Amino acid sequence: MFYFDKKLQYPVRVETPDPLFARQLQQAIGGIEGEIRVCMQYFFQGWGSRGPTTKYRDMLLNTATEEMGHIEMLATAVALNLDKAPVSEQESGAADGIVGSIMGGGNTKGVIGDMLQRHILSTGLAAFPANADGVPFDMSHVYASGNLAADMYCNVAAESTGRVLAVRLYNATNDPGMKDMLGFMIARDTMHQQQWLAVIEELGEKAHLPIPNSFDQSKENTKYSYAFFGSAADGTPPMAGRWTDGPSLDGKAQFSVMQNAPLGEEPVLGPARSDSAAQKEQMA
Amino acid sequence: MFYFDKKLQYPVRVETPDPLFARQLQQAIGGIEGEIRVCMQYFFQGWGSRGPTTKYRDMLLNTATEEMGHIEMLATAVALNLDKAPVSEQESGAADGIVGSIMGGGNTKGVIGDMLQRHILSTGLAAFPANADGVPFDMSHVYASGNLAADMYCNVAAESTGRVLAVRLYNATNDPGMKDMLGFMIARDTMHQQQWLAVIEELGEKAHLPIPNSFDQSKENTKYSYAFFGSAADGTPPMAGRWTDGPSLDGKAQFSVMQNAPLGEEPVLGPARSDSAAQKEQMA
Amino acid sequence: MFYFDKKLQYPVRVETPDPLFARQLQQAIGGIEGEIRVCMQYFFQGWGSRGPTTKYRDMLLNTATEEMGHIEMLATAVALNLDKAPVSEQESGAADGIVGSIMGGGNTKGVIGDMLQRHILSTGLAAFPANADGVPFDMSHVYASGNLAADMYCNVAAESTGRVLAVRLYNATNDPGMKDMLGFMIARDTMHQQQWLAVIEELGEKAHLPIPNSFDQSKENTKYSYAFFGSAADGTPPMAGRWTDGPSLDGKAQFSVMQNAPLGEEPVLGPARSDSAAQKEQMA
Amino acid sequence: MFYFDKKLQYPVRVETPDPLFARQLQQAIGGIEGEIRVCMQYFFQGWGSRGPTTKYRDMLLNTATEEMGHIEMLATAVALNLDKAPVSEQESGAADGIVGSIMGGGNTKGVIGDMLQRHILSTGLAAFPANADGVPFDMSHVYASGNLAADMYCNVAAESTGRVLAVRLYNATNDPGMKDMLGFMIARDTMHQQQWLAVIEELGEKAHLPIPNSFDQSKENTKYSYAFFGSAADGTPPMAGRWTDGPSLDGKAQFSVMQNAPLGEEPVLGPARSDSAAQKEQMA
Amino acid sequence: MFYFDKKLQYPVRVETPDPLFARQLQQAIGGIEGEIRVCMQYFFQGWGSRGPTTKYRDMLLNTATEEMGHIEMLATAVALNLDKAPVSEQESGAADGIVGSIMGGGNTKGVIGDMLQRHILSTGLAAFPANADGVPFDMSHVYASGNLAADMYCNVAAESTGRVLAVRLYNATNDPGMKDMLGFMIARDTMHQQQWLAVIEELGEKAHLPIPNSFDQSKENTKYSYAFFGSAADGTPPMAGRWTDGPSLDGKAQFSVMQNAPLGEEPVLGPARSDSAAQKEQMA
Amino acid sequence: MFYFDKKLQYPVRVETPDPLFARQLQQAIGGIEGEIRVCMQYFFQGWGSRGPTTKYRDMLLNTATEEMGHIEMLATAVALNLDKAPVSEQESGAADGIVGSIMGGGNTKGVIGDMLQRHILSTGLAAFPANADGVPFDMSHVYASGNLAADMYCNVAAESTGRVLAVRLYNATNDPGMKDMLGFMIARDTMHQQQWLAVIEELGEKAHLPIPNSFDQSKENTKYSYAFFGSAADGTPPMAGRWTDGPSLDGKAQFSVMQNAPLGEEPVLGPARSDSAAQKEQMA
Repeated sequence: MFYFDKKLQYPVRVETPDPLFARQLQQAIGGIEGEIRVCMQYFFQGWGSRGPTTKYRDMLLNTATEEMGHIEMLATAVALNLDKAPVSEQESGAADGIVGSIMGGGNTKGVIGDMLQRHILSTGLAAFPANADGVPFDMSHVYASGNLAADMYCNVAAESTGRVLAVRLYNATNDPGMKDMLGFMIARDTMHQQQWLAVIEELGEKAHLPIPNSFDQSKENTKYSYAFFGSAADGTPPMAGRWTDGPSLDGKAQFSVMQNAPLGEEPVLGPARSDSAAQKEQMA
Repeated sequence: MFYFDKKLQYPVRVETPDPLFARQLQQAIGGIEGEIRVCMQYFFQGWGSRGPTTKYRDMLLNTATEEMGHIEMLATAVALNLDKAPVSEQESGAADGIVGSIMGGGNTKGVIGDMLQRHILSTGLAAFPANADGVPFDMSHVYASGNLAADMYCNVAAESTGRVLAVRLYNATNDPGMKDMLGFMIARDTMHQQQWLAVIEELGEKAHLPIPNSFDQSKENTKYSYAFFGSAADGTPPMAGRWTDGPSLDGKAQFSVMQNAPLGEEPVLGPARSDSAAQKEQMA
Repeated sequence: MFYFDKKLQYPVRVETPDPLFARQLQQAIGGIEGEIRVCMQYFFQGWGSRGPTTKYRDMLLNTATEEMGHIEMLATAVALNLDKAPVSEQESGAADGIVGSIMGGGNTKGVIGDMLQRHILSTGLAAFPANADGVPFDMSHVYASGNLAADMYCNVAAESTGRVLAVRLYNATNDPGMKDMLGFMIARDTMHQQQWLAVIEELGEKAHLPIPNSFDQSKENTKYSYAFFGSAADGTPPMAGRWTDGPSLDGKAQFSVMQNAPLGEEPVLGPARSDSAAQKEQMA
Repeated sequence: MFYFDKKLQYPVRVETPDPLFARQLQQAIGGIEGEIRVCMQYFFQGWGSRGPTTKYRDMLLNTATEEMGHIEMLATAVALNLDKAPVSEQESGAADGIVGSIMGGGNTKGVIGDMLQRHILSTGLAAFPANADGVPFDMSHVYASGNLAADMYCNVAAESTGRVLAVRLYNATNDPGMKDMLGFMIARDTMHQQQWLAVIEELGEKAHLPIPNSFDQSKENTKYSYAFFGSAADGTPPMAGRWTDGPSLDGKAQFSVMQNAPLGEEPVLGPARSDSAAQKEQMA
Repeated sequence: MFYFDKKLQYPVRVETPDPLFARQLQQAIGGIEGEIRVCMQYFFQGWGSRGPTTKYRDMLLNTATEEMGHIEMLATAVALNLDKAPVSEQESGAADGIVGSIMGGGNTKGVIGDMLQRHILSTGLAAFPANADGVPFDMSHVYASGNLAADMYCNVAAESTGRVLAVRLYNATNDPGMKDMLGFMIARDTMHQQQWLAVIEELGEKAHLPIPNSFDQSKENTKYSYAFFGSAADGTPPMAGRWTDGPSLDGKAQFSVMQNAPLGEEPVLGPARSDSAAQKEQMA
Repeated sequence: MFYFDKKLQYPVRVETPDPLFARQLQQAIGGIEGEIRVCMQYFFQGWGSRGPTTKYRDMLLNTATEEMGHIEMLATAVALNLDKAPVSEQESGAADGIVGSIMGGGNTKGVIGDMLQRHILSTGLAAFPANADGVPFDMSHVYASGNLAADMYCNVAAESTGRVLAVRLYNATNDPGMKDMLGFMIARDTMHQQQWLAVIEELGEKAHLPIPNSFDQSKENTKYSYAFFGSAADGTPPMAGRWTDGPSLDGKAQFSVMQNAPLGEEPVLGPARSDSAAQKEQMA
């Protein structure tokens, strides 16, 4: 179960409110690279954690709980960026309210309004759980497969795209408060990338592969397990890389290159049945 | 651009059609762990590939093109599992058609019908691009960040959850044809896991971290870059693991443990503006 | 604006309530082939209708308004199929309520419960605007392009898949009341298919093509406007059909066959910029 | 920011694991009536709370934090219901694994498998953030308008549908542990319904209406502000109720009944422009 | 069943077409606070209405039918705002069509085009059933639980957020025609808020609580039914309000405050099964 | 199975990169009128094709494969439009990166940034599978009913709205390279419209109606099969058109006009059951 502290994990200061930046920050809240996703992903992995040790559940809950605080920081940052920015301009110049003063003027004001419009129309100048385009976050992005190694790679993927996003946001603002907050979050992403990879290392750099490692590999068609397939129509071989020759990463075989070609036949499905509401011409 | 061969990449045989298994196979077509996802993910990564070399584009297009053939194989497998199975039973015993004969009988038939109902009502006994619950695949699961290392981890994640799913499907069928097909696909997943990790190795096991490695790390708050945060309310330290001490995976620091505690203050947002359609009581 | 009559457009009788059929009927309410879709599609086309005549707006509103009544009929049919069916069985045999009596028994009851569970858990035995798999209808399926001919083909498509679904539902039930209701709805789908095609005929069988017919066709690359492209990797020509030779349907040209081959070059995107949060290795 | 306790808020015991009930419990996790929704709704309302007092932020964060623990309880309940149930049967009778033993048998087993299949194929027997039909929760259901009174009614709505669902789940199980857990959750829903209504009472039973109460009501067309409109085609007046006469709930007027009739004209949109890709026939 | 009148419920006039405002009006059509939602919500509640009286069905159909007319008014308003506005400018200054003249100019024009682009590219200058960000309306927002009191609160919530939105739109325009139309709609929202609350009053201010009132409250864990839980990590009690002491709103108890603390234990799930495609290390 | 050629089907040249146009092109990639949709629709129709001949499978795979190349061309066009455009301006004037230089300046730059922000924040200047509003493509738009004639009309609908979109994009750009590419795509849409209609012609202009033509029409309520229903409240007959009189398009009857009026009664659902979690007042 959970507790809260009214204080934030790290200071959130906005020196010059920038409503356009508020809109961009939404990507870090409700985007697929954002904090709701990692928070919920770690919680669901932790709550479903199975195995002889509870240490992965412990680790996951520690970090998931931290991520809740990151959503809070970003939601606060969005509200502060929306909070005061266009006020003086508006209150002096407009008779009919926030939206009117922004939207009713020339195109330039209209533009700001476009970015703000959901923040104005739908939230009263606060964050919402959607991305920078206003697309709501959908929980199918919570990856929790029940396989520990697969989940760790899902987490590395999430923190990698997450830190890429945070860096792009860092580059997009000149506000010292925002840069300070993002500098903290980028640091946490650094750690989080490492910690999921540390689990992989603990599971054995080679021994954890292929995932799942509990499947008897003799059941797979091993002739094709370590071959890079080229699919160029004219038979041009693929360009060489670490994946085209040398030992495989699990140490069990050598990489090779094969040209992709049909091993199967043209499939023939039966005709449509007489009572299947197809056209008559599709029936035998 | 692209070409096709009418033949399949690998034989798809169904000895005993099993409509319930058809429904399960949908997860491998339209689930987030499925083949549409990897196919489109590799294509979009390839089409947006930037850098001094075109070899990653080449690699991605080779594998994306192969995955198109996997969708085709699975779609064929779904249709064959739906194709003939309940036919004789139906045609002898029912007057009012496919669905009627399945649905109109006792509960047991009804049950099969439940699993089949979208395949019957909406497709005429063919595959559709949705998962085993009938939830359509949505392209937000195509991860392509523009950062090569982040994308490779997204791909490892996809192939790891994909092979986990394929193994579960393998375990769910006794049909020799289906086991043969899945044994091939599992082998290809083995290779695909390795090949994306091989790119990571080529980029340098340590040098590629933290992702993105093009951000000047002195700008992040490095005090917190390698610390695992404990969030237990009673201050219980996190359970020890590779991620709590020892050298960090990028070789730049030592892991440590810190207790999570507020570094910030309680946030104070301004009152609602007089023209923001809040309640009067929210205004200053 | 609109008015209602408490009476239904056509009688909805259920002689033997069948909760499994209730679940199937959902496809005709909230499926993409269903009635919400056509109702809203015709309304939005009508409300946005532009042109020298208002007769298309008139036609669209007439039929959209009729479709509202079809949603109502189907919602009533769902509720009636859920209404009384398992009651006596339950009330005699179960102490703990509707769901309990259905779910708490053996697997057979459980199965019925599975199909019913959203109807029990979420609606109290009534219809909801989702399909037979419980996927909510999403309004992106309302096609209204602003081009009259394009919209008419969207409508023919909707009524064609709609009548296919209605026929499959007709085949899935033995209830005389349900067959009577569906026999009416199938008749209306017959008419609706014809009426949208009648608009096409009125627009001129050839003159309405290609859509939009207001674009100066000399601006398109007419060399490729009437050629069927073969994409077989080994150059096998496509199988012959009405579309491979003979006059084109707009009467402006002859169909021909061309083998698909690259007319363009391999694309080269610039390297990633130094400040784009790509990996260093992607930068020039 | 947040902290966790490894212990659960309330005991979660499952005496007889019931995988069908696990599937039903998903509605309380990822359904629109479920716990993710209320948790996130209260957080986003709290994080965006504006006004002279912080007490609503305080109240919202207290309850949102509690709800996090409810998601955890339900996720645990799902895993426990999936955990051990069909094990002995499987391990004795089946050679090819969990899914195989469930799915590969007769139809009855298949049925259980159908309900389990996402839990088996996608999660390894754990909860996931989707509803009982497998539809993922989507964050557009987080209602946070920035208007305190509107948000309170959204919360009452959420807790009302939530308690309705919890009661239906309570009725659907005979497991004493599950009944005990649900009996606790239903009690909390009782409180949560009351507390949001208590805010309304504090805001003034009449004074908070109409929402928002900060809009100068003289700007609205007050002739129609307290009239119930009848829309029956034959002019039948609506059936009488508290809403057809007597004082309005805000004490400002008397309810009345009016027959709905057009006050406007038939709208005429301009013809399509020559360059808008409409059909030529739509242009003036 | 339903009928239409070509005339609008209330006049829709646009004196100065404003394409930016057209985009904002979309929120009132296809936003979760919008008219499609209330229309469909009231219809589905009405069509599923159960009870000894039909008066709630009657009431719901009356108002749902009215709301259909509101969608029509707003769709008309969107089309009129898009209709003529940038015409003269375009036709004088641009050679290549609507979009070109808007988009091809300087950034300012581009900005207008951004807001318009879906209206231009996808609809030919007409409304579509999506919100101001272009996110299509999804029918999961149609709340109809089968519990009359719960549904009434869902309706109050919808009309409260709806009137908040309408007021924000009113504030966003200076067009007298739009202000007149919105002044009418705001008045109707005033009434609609009241009428759903009037049902609550009719059901008994206290007697309708807790919802559902048909559940035997002795089955819930009443120790926790009227206690506000504080979740502050340091034990700080919640700030006082109507909900922390005094009689509960249903008159059955007194409110109190309790500090949230674990009543349960740390959950222990079983290890992963040998055939579940987990990692070997997760197995017992 | 499939092969690729690194070269593009047709040259993609961008003379003057225009990031606003990149955003618009997204509609043709991930919009419902776009290329992912037609590609996947033709593939799923082809993979599920049933009937005595394989020529429709052949035709569908030929064109689906071609469409894959169109997605590639558009993705390339998006990247090239994003590639170089604002570079010089940025690199001279801004210290903190791509986004910063665009977003951090005045409102005009901010505006461009708004359109670009997902391309910058989420993709590193590349295409993504979403529409011009950033709404991800969802595979429910892949129409494949199993009825050949219905599917052909779905395809005509897709190519009609597709060509309408392509023409609007053509009108929106002055770039010769983009006009050349779109001129090619518009030509292909011309052909694709024709080829699906050619199948219809081959199936028999009248004989294919009503769809499905395999349903015994005597089972439908033929009294209503060829009547256009008027739903005007005041009984005004519908405006005349090809659909109000004359022979029906299938040659089987004459069109007529009927006034819509209730043939059914007011539906009466049973009261809520005692254990259904309704309000007590809803129970008998």
